[in-house]
Amino acid sequence: MDLTKYVANIKDFPEEGIIFRDVTPLMKDHNAFKETIDRFVIWANSLEAKVDIVAGPEARGFLFGCPVAYSINAGFVPVRKPGKLPRETVCESYALEYGTNEVHIHADSIKQGQKVIIVDDLLATGGTVEATIKLVEKLGGEVIGIAFLIELEELKGRDKLEGYNIYSMLKY
Amino acid sequence: MDLTKYVANIKDFPEEGIIFRDVTPLMKDHNAFKETIDRFVIWANSLEAKVDIVAGPEARGFLFGCPVAYSINAGFVPVRKPGKLPRETVCESYALEYGTNEVHIHADSIKQGQKVIIVDDLLATGGTVEATIKLVEKLGGEVIGIAFLIELEELKGRDKLEGYNIYSMLKY
Repeated sequence: MDLTKYVANIKDFPEEGIIFRDVTPLMKDHNAFKETIDRFVIWANSLEAKVDIVAGPEARGFLFGCPVAYSINAGFVPVRKPGKLPRETVCESYALEYGTNEVHIHADSIKQGQKVIIVDDLLATGGTVEATIKLVEKLGGEVIGIAFLIELEELKGRDKLEGYNIYSMLKY
Repeated sequence: MDLTKYVANIKDFPEEGIIFRDVTPLMKDHNAFKETIDRFVIWANSLEAKVDIVAGPEARGFLFGCPVAYSINAGFVPVRKPGKLPRETVCESYALEYGTNEVHIHADSIKQGQKVIIVDDLLATGGTVEATIKLVEKLGGEVIGIAFLIELEELKGRDKLEGYNIYSMLKY
């Protein structure tokens, strides 16, 4: 199945000059959605160790990370924007073109030595995922793999992730 | 399995007087997460018709709605805040204590006659879910069931949903 047929390419969203890769057509088609999750699951099951936790950044990381966690019998830990998690968090900030963003994770969400994979919809410049790796490692988790539905190769986000096991399903 | 043991009760979050029901402990525990999704799936499979689409409101509706959609071989349609969906949307606003909120859905996300369930983490006053029902029905979808992990009974959100098949897993 050619999953790229289910990704809508939207010019100038959210701002001029950006081509937004819209995965909602893929999700609403039950065959394409199933195929996508199945491929993530096959990848996750091929890793060298059993995955304890899937971490997914808000909000599109939830769309793929949660079904993967359920299917491989792992827990799911949300990585969220400031003000969303009600208990003690650790946080990381990362640079945007203008300004910075911050991501949070509950301080008790991952135990020392747990095997963690990170699942997100998109690898662009890699800022979010780099911050997410730092959060997981601060808590003592071991990031054994990172998976994306889409990788925007020209933005070279992969350069920030050297030494990690990266899987991207669709490359642009 | 008593799933309430995996819900953290946080006083005065996000503001004074509110007890926030935090489901992140449930999600990080792979057994509790699996049990939760399995119960939703059993309920969905018990409905009178095959479900075509699971609709889930941003962002916590994604956490449960996506694994359920995958498991019952349905598509998933996100219901989102303004500015997040890149193509033509339909929208509904609903009242908050102070002001209003707005939810959007892609105009082509549901076809006439499709059977839809709505999955969300929490039924409180019911504003979000009521607006979500309207969006689905505007597009010609038929809401054959609505499921929540948690229902806050004293807020009487259920009163807004008369005539619909409602499932709530945990009641407070």
